[in-house]
Amino acid sequence: MSDLINHRIRRSWTEEGAASAGLPDRAVRWLGQRIGQVGPDRGGKTGAAAPVAESALTVPVRTEFEDLLGADYVLVDPQERLGRTGGLSYLDLLHARAGDEVPVPDAVLLPADPDQVQAVLDLCVRHDIGVVPFGGGTSVVGGVAALRGDKAAVVVLDLVRLDELVSVDPVSRIAVLQAGVRGPEAERLLAAHGYTLGHVPQSFERATIGGFAATRSAGQASSGYGRFEDMVAGIRLATPKGEWRLGVAPASAAGPDLRQLAVGSEGTLGVITEVALRVRPLPEQRHYEGWIVDGWEAGAAAVRKLAQDHGLADVTRLSDVDETNVSFSLNAGLKTAALKAYLKARGIKNPCLLIVGWEGDVVRRRRTSAMLRCSGALRIGKVLGESWRHGRFNGPRQRDALLDLGVCVETLETAAYWSNLDELHDAVRAALVASLGQAIVMCHVSHAYETGASLYFTVLTSRDDRDPVGQWQRAKAAACEAITGIGTISHHHAVGVDHAPYLEAEIGKIGLDVLRAAKSAVDPTGILNPGKLLG
Amino acid sequence: MSDLINHRIRRSWTEEGAASAGLPDRAVRWLGQRIGQVGPDRGGKTGAAAPVAESALTVPVRTEFEDLLGADYVLVDPQERLGRTGGLSYLDLLHARAGDEVPVPDAVLLPADPDQVQAVLDLCVRHDIGVVPFGGGTSVVGGVAALRGDKAAVVVLDLVRLDELVSVDPVSRIAVLQAGVRGPEAERLLAAHGYTLGHVPQSFERATIGGFAATRSAGQASSGYGRFEDMVAGIRLATPKGEWRLGVAPASAAGPDLRQLAVGSEGTLGVITEVALRVRPLPEQRHYEGWIVDGWEAGAAAVRKLAQDHGLADVTRLSDVDETNVSFSLNAGLKTAALKAYLKARGIKNPCLLIVGWEGDVVRRRRTSAMLRCSGALRIGKVLGESWRHGRFNGPRQRDALLDLGVCVETLETAAYWSNLDELHDAVRAALVASLGQAIVMCHVSHAYETGASLYFTVLTSRDDRDPVGQWQRAKAAACEAITGIGTISHHHAVGVDHAPYLEAEIGKIGLDVLRAAKSAVDPTGILNPGKLLG
Repeated sequence: MSDLINHRIRRSWTEEGAASAGLPDRAVRWLGQRIGQVGPDRGGKTGAAAPVAESALTVPVRTEFEDLLGADYVLVDPQERLGRTGGLSYLDLLHARAGDEVPVPDAVLLPADPDQVQAVLDLCVRHDIGVVPFGGGTSVVGGVAALRGDKAAVVVLDLVRLDELVSVDPVSRIAVLQAGVRGPEAERLLAAHGYTLGHVPQSFERATIGGFAATRSAGQASSGYGRFEDMVAGIRLATPKGEWRLGVAPASAAGPDLRQLAVGSEGTLGVITEVALRVRPLPEQRHYEGWIVDGWEAGAAAVRKLAQDHGLADVTRLSDVDETNVSFSLNAGLKTAALKAYLKARGIKNPCLLIVGWEGDVVRRRRTSAMLRCSGALRIGKVLGESWRHGRFNGPRQRDALLDLGVCVETLETAAYWSNLDELHDAVRAALVASLGQAIVMCHVSHAYETGASLYFTVLTSRDDRDPVGQWQRAKAAACEAITGIGTISHHHAVGVDHAPYLEAEIGKIGLDVLRAAKSAVDPTGILNPGKLLG
Repeated sequence: MSDLINHRIRRSWTEEGAASAGLPDRAVRWLGQRIGQVGPDRGGKTGAAAPVAESALTVPVRTEFEDLLGADYVLVDPQERLGRTGGLSYLDLLHARAGDEVPVPDAVLLPADPDQVQAVLDLCVRHDIGVVPFGGGTSVVGGVAALRGDKAAVVVLDLVRLDELVSVDPVSRIAVLQAGVRGPEAERLLAAHGYTLGHVPQSFERATIGGFAATRSAGQASSGYGRFEDMVAGIRLATPKGEWRLGVAPASAAGPDLRQLAVGSEGTLGVITEVALRVRPLPEQRHYEGWIVDGWEAGAAAVRKLAQDHGLADVTRLSDVDETNVSFSLNAGLKTAALKAYLKARGIKNPCLLIVGWEGDVVRRRRTSAMLRCSGALRIGKVLGESWRHGRFNGPRQRDALLDLGVCVETLETAAYWSNLDELHDAVRAALVASLGQAIVMCHVSHAYETGASLYFTVLTSRDDRDPVGQWQRAKAAACEAITGIGTISHHHAVGVDHAPYLEAEIGKIGLDVLRAAKSAVDPTGILNPGKLLG
């Protein structure tokens, strides 16, 4: 059972006692100058035990689950249940550190395969029990909170045992993976056949195939490999109305594309059990490098040119002036003073860092580079590119270290058409600063398209210990209101609980009614992921 | 009014008296050898007047429509009504030639703008009148048949007056076009700003922006410009529940992508009034050429390699042996005997024609060409490429000419993943030949993707004058049954009436229930395009 226990959400990505390891003293001093009071003395209490209510499952119902799955795979131990609720948002971490009471499922069920998932759902329909599908537990929008809705009980369906590569079709370049396969394991399984998904979101190390599909995930290399929904050839879901399989051709005019309704349904239309995915050959080569552009507008224009004139690298990531400054300041391996002097000598006043990376066919590099030079960008070599690539999953670890220093730190993201992008950038930044006061608000474009791009904000401010939860809730609400009407409420974090109040403004009352009607058709009693997406 | 009258469906694409102009005598003789009895004496009667019932609209209701739109824009004349029902399938043409009774709308309404479309819908809800949205009338699956369903009356909403380019955003490269804009007019309007859609399906000359979106159209250059749904940034629909607008960002994780539910909804979820579309700069250069591969399997493998290794030209179209033979035989400008001798000398036994065309950045030609040579393909120069490009909208005209000769001629299409493509090709071909007997069944791949491709079949056989309708209905049913389980029932022709019986096998009972629930949410009384898509 130890492997299952280890699977519980680790609220920290770092080892005990090494929480601040990632932040050198000079970085802590620099932060203090920028956002006020921070330091090792401000970590606050951690490891407090949250209260966990008794499981509301009756013994006969629990016995039915045990008869179906085996007693080892029906967990009611309080720590097991506490370990699989909520996710990894800043507020989730605050609650976990403070030992606050949070919604906890009445049991954790661990089905072995799609048939068992279907059988569990059938039992849950019979007993009117809410079901929260659970993969890596990395949601930052409350997507896996164990909310009961109007049900007497709620169970978490942990899909960790659905861990197989079901099939590989080398002719069609399609692989079928089960929903519980995590990012690294998916890559390992596919690499044995010479393939890769190329899907590397920051949650890569823990998040699962099912979660990627349920949330319309976008990886850091989406410019090359596409968003996760672009990779989905087929999908298999368990629903209260039975199994639902979609996907028989790469494209179709047989009515609306229902795959694109299942993808992004966040567990409200069914439990994704398997996904058929387009795969690509493992890249033989990788090449990552850093470029500098002078100012945000020039940088956005350069990325836009790449996107519209078919010159995007597989990874194309533009930091604004603030994020560039932070990168320079926190990068221990960088000769920052020398770099700044070099840029100054070149007349660059407001350096913005652009990371570009190619995988596989690195010959395309010539085209991208020529276009970047035309846009006035300056190549500064492989160091920053490679250091970004090697550290690209470290964000959550750095966040843990910052929490230990009393920093309120969170990210949020959106996307818009190019002509709205500057307005969106300024509006979100202004809303966050107005709400938080002394704060670092930095931003990057990490996903570019012909018609627009994403914006990913990172916010750091000194934690308000009188009301740490309210401090962030107000700032987040201000940011969401600033986004509404200009961009989408989420480019790749999904809706969950946190963004549900803003969905109607984006898709209209008709859009919400359509989603609710679709849900009623497959889940008439509303057992699937109560309280998510549709509020 | 003459411009409106001219807008009625022309059942022939050719001028009176010139119907057979496209087919030289040698082609007619060659056809006779292949499919039996054909000739100018077998055209049958044409131009017979179909009976048209009185309009079921009451005078008070008609007056309400006239008050709303103006009397000139509410047409009840029998010929106007007959001119806007059905589409351009082989059976539609047979019925029109024979003067058969077909479902005819009770009025044709011509709203001026999206607000009038919405107001018409509100009136139709109030009076429980069915509404058929109508663009170019080019459906080949019964998508614009004036079926009443359970309504007392049905009107056709002809969107010809929604003919504006609403806006152009050169930064985001997005243009908003009204639903009634036809293909050539869209290109003319965009060209004035330096842009193109690049969407050139065979119906291009008549079909409209709204129709392209409603049916998930795919143009002949879809490898380069994408399918129509790939171009849709935003969409505006009038529905019985009010206006519905979607699309605020190039990509989003704010729940399922409802744009992909609206696209392909075939008028059942709303009347599309405007579409925001990704546009591209007008290509400065075009280069089309012909290649030959030896056999269907080798050809499909070559196209698959292009699709999977990022070497597709903007147009990539592979004909099978039969279609290649027909192309060679019917191409008046080709020195067929010399070409055949040349191919034979090169050891090519089963020539399959591959048309490849690049637009804009024709430098990419080098990459495609190198990959094709690696696949054993032989370049035969620009003649066949250019003659295909110049004749690419001629299919419907040739069909008219063939009908005049007593030929039963129709097309049907599907798509599948690469590993199923040969099986699909063989199964559909066998089903058609088994049903029709002496027939030419030819096929091409015109849309290739990393994971699969489309198949487009053209069928020619001698018309069975005892039961011409049943002859084709039986063949079509056999083909659809052969497709089911291997490929999609439509890659770009849509569902309409004809494919509705096969939709459940593709998307499941749950998929149908979800679509019906979505429809009920926006159209609770079922006035929108009765009998289409959902049967």
